[in-house]
Amino acid sequence: MTLPGAKARSAQEPWIDWTRVLFANYSKVRSQTENLCLPLLIEDYGIQSMPDMSPPKWHLAHTTWFFETFLLLPHVKNYAVFDPAYSFLFNSYYESQGSRVERSRRGLLSRPAVSDVYAYRRHVDEAVAQLLQSLAGTAVTEIRETVTLGLHHEQQHQELLLTDIKHLFWSNPLRPVYHQHRLHEVLNPGPLEMVQVAGGLLEVGVTPSERPDDPFTFDLERPRHKIHLSDFKLASRAVTNGEYLEFIQAGGYQDPSFWLSDGWATVKAEGWQAPLYWEKSTLGWQMMTLSGMRRVQESEAVCHVSYYEADAYARFRGKRLPTEAEWEVAATSASSTVGNFMESSVYHPISPTSRESGESTPAFDQVLGNVWEWTSSPFQPYPGFRPLQGAFGEYNGKFMINQMVLRGGSCATPREHIRPTYRNFFTPSTRWQFSGIRLASDST
Amino acid sequence: MTLPGAKARSAQEPWIDWTRVLFANYSKVRSQTENLCLPLLIEDYGIQSMPDMSPPKWHLAHTTWFFETFLLLPHVKNYAVFDPAYSFLFNSYYESQGSRVERSRRGLLSRPAVSDVYAYRRHVDEAVAQLLQSLAGTAVTEIRETVTLGLHHEQQHQELLLTDIKHLFWSNPLRPVYHQHRLHEVLNPGPLEMVQVAGGLLEVGVTPSERPDDPFTFDLERPRHKIHLSDFKLASRAVTNGEYLEFIQAGGYQDPSFWLSDGWATVKAEGWQAPLYWEKSTLGWQMMTLSGMRRVQESEAVCHVSYYEADAYARFRGKRLPTEAEWEVAATSASSTVGNFMESSVYHPISPTSRESGESTPAFDQVLGNVWEWTSSPFQPYPGFRPLQGAFGEYNGKFMINQMVLRGGSCATPREHIRPTYRNFFTPSTRWQFSGIRLASDST
Amino acid sequence: MTLPGAKARSAQEPWIDWTRVLFANYSKVRSQTENLCLPLLIEDYGIQSMPDMSPPKWHLAHTTWFFETFLLLPHVKNYAVFDPAYSFLFNSYYESQGSRVERSRRGLLSRPAVSDVYAYRRHVDEAVAQLLQSLAGTAVTEIRETVTLGLHHEQQHQELLLTDIKHLFWSNPLRPVYHQHRLHEVLNPGPLEMVQVAGGLLEVGVTPSERPDDPFTFDLERPRHKIHLSDFKLASRAVTNGEYLEFIQAGGYQDPSFWLSDGWATVKAEGWQAPLYWEKSTLGWQMMTLSGMRRVQESEAVCHVSYYEADAYARFRGKRLPTEAEWEVAATSASSTVGNFMESSVYHPISPTSRESGESTPAFDQVLGNVWEWTSSPFQPYPGFRPLQGAFGEYNGKFMINQMVLRGGSCATPREHIRPTYRNFFTPSTRWQFSGIRLASDST
Amino acid sequence: MTLPGAKARSAQEPWIDWTRVLFANYSKVRSQTENLCLPLLIEDYGIQSMPDMSPPKWHLAHTTWFFETFLLLPHVKNYAVFDPAYSFLFNSYYESQGSRVERSRRGLLSRPAVSDVYAYRRHVDEAVAQLLQSLAGTAVTEIRETVTLGLHHEQQHQELLLTDIKHLFWSNPLRPVYHQHRLHEVLNPGPLEMVQVAGGLLEVGVTPSERPDDPFTFDLERPRHKIHLSDFKLASRAVTNGEYLEFIQAGGYQDPSFWLSDGWATVKAEGWQAPLYWEKSTLGWQMMTLSGMRRVQESEAVCHVSYYEADAYARFRGKRLPTEAEWEVAATSASSTVGNFMESSVYHPISPTSRESGESTPAFDQVLGNVWEWTSSPFQPYPGFRPLQGAFGEYNGKFMINQMVLRGGSCATPREHIRPTYRNFFTPSTRWQFSGIRLASDST
Repeated sequence: MTLPGAKARSAQEPWIDWTRVLFANYSKVRSQTENLCLPLLIEDYGIQSMPDMSPPKWHLAHTTWFFETFLLLPHVKNYAVFDPAYSFLFNSYYESQGSRVERSRRGLLSRPAVSDVYAYRRHVDEAVAQLLQSLAGTAVTEIRETVTLGLHHEQQHQELLLTDIKHLFWSNPLRPVYHQHRLHEVLNPGPLEMVQVAGGLLEVGVTPSERPDDPFTFDLERPRHKIHLSDFKLASRAVTNGEYLEFIQAGGYQDPSFWLSDGWATVKAEGWQAPLYWEKSTLGWQMMTLSGMRRVQESEAVCHVSYYEADAYARFRGKRLPTEAEWEVAATSASSTVGNFMESSVYHPISPTSRESGESTPAFDQVLGNVWEWTSSPFQPYPGFRPLQGAFGEYNGKFMINQMVLRGGSCATPREHIRPTYRNFFTPSTRWQFSGIRLASDST
Repeated sequence: MTLPGAKARSAQEPWIDWTRVLFANYSKVRSQTENLCLPLLIEDYGIQSMPDMSPPKWHLAHTTWFFETFLLLPHVKNYAVFDPAYSFLFNSYYESQGSRVERSRRGLLSRPAVSDVYAYRRHVDEAVAQLLQSLAGTAVTEIRETVTLGLHHEQQHQELLLTDIKHLFWSNPLRPVYHQHRLHEVLNPGPLEMVQVAGGLLEVGVTPSERPDDPFTFDLERPRHKIHLSDFKLASRAVTNGEYLEFIQAGGYQDPSFWLSDGWATVKAEGWQAPLYWEKSTLGWQMMTLSGMRRVQESEAVCHVSYYEADAYARFRGKRLPTEAEWEVAATSASSTVGNFMESSVYHPISPTSRESGESTPAFDQVLGNVWEWTSSPFQPYPGFRPLQGAFGEYNGKFMINQMVLRGGSCATPREHIRPTYRNFFTPSTRWQFSGIRLASDST
Repeated sequence: MTLPGAKARSAQEPWIDWTRVLFANYSKVRSQTENLCLPLLIEDYGIQSMPDMSPPKWHLAHTTWFFETFLLLPHVKNYAVFDPAYSFLFNSYYESQGSRVERSRRGLLSRPAVSDVYAYRRHVDEAVAQLLQSLAGTAVTEIRETVTLGLHHEQQHQELLLTDIKHLFWSNPLRPVYHQHRLHEVLNPGPLEMVQVAGGLLEVGVTPSERPDDPFTFDLERPRHKIHLSDFKLASRAVTNGEYLEFIQAGGYQDPSFWLSDGWATVKAEGWQAPLYWEKSTLGWQMMTLSGMRRVQESEAVCHVSYYEADAYARFRGKRLPTEAEWEVAATSASSTVGNFMESSVYHPISPTSRESGESTPAFDQVLGNVWEWTSSPFQPYPGFRPLQGAFGEYNGKFMINQMVLRGGSCATPREHIRPTYRNFFTPSTRWQFSGIRLASDST
Repeated sequence: MTLPGAKARSAQEPWIDWTRVLFANYSKVRSQTENLCLPLLIEDYGIQSMPDMSPPKWHLAHTTWFFETFLLLPHVKNYAVFDPAYSFLFNSYYESQGSRVERSRRGLLSRPAVSDVYAYRRHVDEAVAQLLQSLAGTAVTEIRETVTLGLHHEQQHQELLLTDIKHLFWSNPLRPVYHQHRLHEVLNPGPLEMVQVAGGLLEVGVTPSERPDDPFTFDLERPRHKIHLSDFKLASRAVTNGEYLEFIQAGGYQDPSFWLSDGWATVKAEGWQAPLYWEKSTLGWQMMTLSGMRRVQESEAVCHVSYYEADAYARFRGKRLPTEAEWEVAATSASSTVGNFMESSVYHPISPTSRESGESTPAFDQVLGNVWEWTSSPFQPYPGFRPLQGAFGEYNGKFMINQMVLRGGSCATPREHIRPTYRNFFTPSTRWQFSGIRLASDST
């Protein structure tokens, strides 16, 4: 198994500290995952509230299984597997790694116990530590890349942990609180402006330089390639709850003319009347958050909308969604290192124009963080795409059908995990992610 | 709300100790329930492995909700409800008691915590203790009857706890062990004899005498009434695994001529090839038990068969299933106080001819305990049936459709809960109960 | 294959004319079937509007297949099968006769053409005529019984033809008219009286005398056997639309307390608000009839109700449905040779007290004809029931589960087909038959 | 309602004959539709064999409804609607035109009769003739465009008529023959070559010139726009049955590594083992054709494969499917006016290298006709896409989700209907169209 860029590197490069740096990062990411579980009761760890969602215990174990399967077993001589059954229980979808528990049955596993899963994590963490220590001063590119991939994989599951816990708690009539977060002061998000962006023969995506200190990218972001865009306009910020309420109040969920045919069928079949987690009460619209039920704040970015809703909303406004190339071209210049990410511990969208004090005004507010932004692009391989070799080839490539690309990360995404070239993807009816809307339009 | 027999009792009766006796019984039954949960991890309490099954936590809470709703709230002035949400969470099907969690969603409730549910039990148990103490020396028939009903209700859930845990553990590829029980020595069950029983104008069912020390019966066992039976034959014992294997090996699951039309459709739709929990391996037939996976013992009573399978097996043998009246007539003389009940802590059928040493030989072995016996009788009201008044009227009457009667109790039934007139009922495709087969035939 | 009563008859009996009589009856019944199809277009013959319903073409062919398979093939030497494929296409459920078209796919057969199916009927009719002619003067009991069974089978399909055409036409927004029938003058049906009937040790069912001129009965009506009944009351007439409307207007379809648990689940799942074929418009309640859409007549017998609705209505009135034994005991004395049968060509229920002029007043109006009456009895074998030998054993016995018995026939039943001992059966949610309600109650 | 290009045309243009030409074309297309129905029995017209398929009667009526609704009603004063109910019965999906029969219920309409539908066609055809006559010498662009759109719409339904009849006949165990066509002589299709095509900044799509004699295009082909392609290779011909059999024999349907995740799930759920209409018998692989069952010919182009199968096959060969832009660039130079189209009356794919005698050798054989070719492009709007105004805006735009583009037409496509820019689209699991495979690969 070789990750791209693995070949032909000289041993003369200054490798001395890489294991130390890598293990520091490993420790940080692994403990971040566990920190997210601190508010959970043992009772919360095992339940699956819908087929798309996985129990927290499963996330904890599966991310560990990843390191055991792809790092320790191939690279540690006489590695003692923690429990042979786990390779069956905690495989996600790697057909090449043998059979596995059917996705919709992940919530039936009351055993192994939560404490067993934490012991599994300890066992693997120690073996990884020993492995990396033993490698200090060497130049084992493949191991370095596998660990790095495993950590980015784990960060993806950190976001899923949050969105899955939110769904689990919402499925419970008691509507438990995951963590108590003070409601942000309500800001007026200010007017939404459509900002002109120049088209032409441009480039998107990434081709790694094959240097070991290259920033990590997934195979699906590669290679960098030419595209042609016409001039277009992109909204200066995401759509707010207040703006989306106008769509609801204008009868948006009752009028087929706004909707794609499959979208309208979904609206009727599911009885959608508002974004997921919204509920109308005598007090007006309320929404489930990880801090419990709250009043819908008009100034916050709308989220938990499907692609169908994002697309219908855009049509309601006489606009459209951006393609992923348009989004990436615009975001590349505008992205900021500050924003509402997992590290903010808000786990909820704020106003789409909120900025840290002292931050200068970019053309596009919060392109990274806060809410994922649906693009109009189906998830397809880039021209010249090569899936990773071996089992990792199943990581992304086999999902390149029936899914739409989202960009930019959310309030549940680790800051270091996201970048303008990052491509996320879900089916167009998905709503349990922190998915929102940024409008686009043709230039003329 | 008045249970039958509540009217017109004289105050002269010797009531002095009834609260003491009742509370002793209450304490015993309530702690039995909790004892059954001792082998569970917290992780085991909340999961629902199929819609017919309920999580252990739900059983613990629902049986408590019963006493809070029907005993404490009506009879204790200023009773402090433990948690108002519980009346919604733990109502089973009492439409008259308001809305409730949909049955198939009982497994989504990670909260309340297991410790909360135990605290709920303590809270209610203390209030019941106080209530009964306060009544010492009085003659409050209605309270006495409600407590008694609640305890019999709780015993039903004790059996369900065991069958539900078995299903939960079977749904887990790890196949956990609930309790380690030594496998019984294999006995040769001896020949199955068809015993002649005289028919005529007979009586079945129970009409209570309205005396307070009357044994408890459910409304569905009432009233005692005349029926006419022809002479018939009933098997001296239940069918064994060994005998049932002959049906399997003779192609019973491949030949529609043995099956009711709906049964054959179910066999094909579900892919049935053997009783529930049986699995064919290279080692031969194995089965899931509450002591883990084990080899199928030919001498044990077959169980976990549906009505369809019981009926097809009978046809394979040129026999039929008994009607519930036939069963009751035969069982009334033959029932024994010893046998394989919940109290044996085997939780698994033994050989259908096993007897305690020194026990005389009845015509019909183990009519009570070991396995429930499917009858050919649909669950219908007896002539003159009157449902209980008020909410208790929903206890049994509204299920009198699409269900078949089973008789005799099983290895998971509390000994005091079962009697020859007891009627259990499940839909004909049900298999997760300890349900077996006793054959019958016409006399000629 | 031997029908009961086939053994040991002496050849001395006066057989001379039986083939003539039988063939006259054959011709009459066969042409009745075709007469029912006269109003159909070719386009109407092939469509299946729901899985329970069969296309008219299928009925025409299947009843013919019955004679070809069970009469001609076994009894006519060198019989030339009309088309070998038909034995696959038009088998209904006889597993012993080989594979068949799945029930829900009967509507996919645009071929054979309607004219082919009529040619099939001609082919078989001629072969039957020749066979019977060749037998004149002999005493071939088995053939006689097979023909007779085939004709009663065909009469059952005559009723199904009418109910299936009604469903087909109702499924079409054009709501075509099958035949134009003048609406009966509206009668006031008069008060419904609960008539006392004496119980005791009684007999129901039929044991044939084994004489060849015995009236035909189905195996499921046999044998005559003892039952014990308490005194009871039975309604003098069926429930009217007007009475049923009171149930609707009292919120009967919104109140779970009237319903069996499965019934209430069905009401909610199917959105039932009234009997099948009723539609509320600005003109009030309308109903589909075989004469097109019409206003609901309050004086007519209510029909197209399921068992669940019949049972709920009875509970609404503080009554219950009769058992089939109660019904049969009461009907045996009360049945009349006149009434609203298929031969009336009304194909719609009239007022439940309508009588032919000059007819004396029986205690129970129209026990035969007009509407089938749901009983509270699940469909079970009588004690001592023996299914017919061979393939005919599949005729009734294998449906003895999950079905409720109806009694008395309807406006779509051939007059000669029905009798007080006749048992019809459908699942409790069935509504497309002409099924109505006669109330009963305990005597005290 | 205005079609694009409708504005600002001068009246001086030479319009004199357009109505004559248009009506000739109208007559030709309308009678082609009816000719396709000549082999049908009345019984074949009304049946729907699966939800995606429509009964022939529905196609005949719906294409007529199109002219009545969009041409006659808006443009003919006092136009007498043939039957007001038809606007409900035969609307396909135009939400703006009111409610309609649910798609899956189109097969329930035994009425109107087939003769009524032909009378409907006569009625509308005469009104169209009169309308066009009345317009001779004028320059009514909108009418001209609506008629033209209606005819292209009808041609799409001609293809569907053929594919739907094929499915209907296959659903019948008799496997009727639609028309008897002599099997083509088996040709050796010759080697498949991967032909190099130069990339760069290229253009695809069409921008109409707004001249009235412009060739017709659909909105979804517009506008012509720049794209950037890398160099690529495209197969000289489509994949044959013989080649596809190698995939089957190599275990392609049993090996998840070839399949997209959703594709593999579909293979398992549907039990796919081969293309639709293939059946393995003791004689080897047979297939349903419109000429009945036949042996699979290895030299013929494979068809009735889903996108999932096309994609898996490409991966099996180490290749990929072309994007629609690649396909269009290559096809634009290579397309021929001869080929296997509807007019050939073969209605079945021939060898992918078959050519008319004397035809020169293009780089790409049969890019038009024979089989549709799946591309790897999801169906999306082109940059700058504008849906048609009014109801026609629902024609294509609202299906731009969850569908993949196919190119090139098939043996069931009218010759004049297809062109290199033509975009067809179906969901990736669709198999009942004549859909095949042309491979592509990256240049390096």
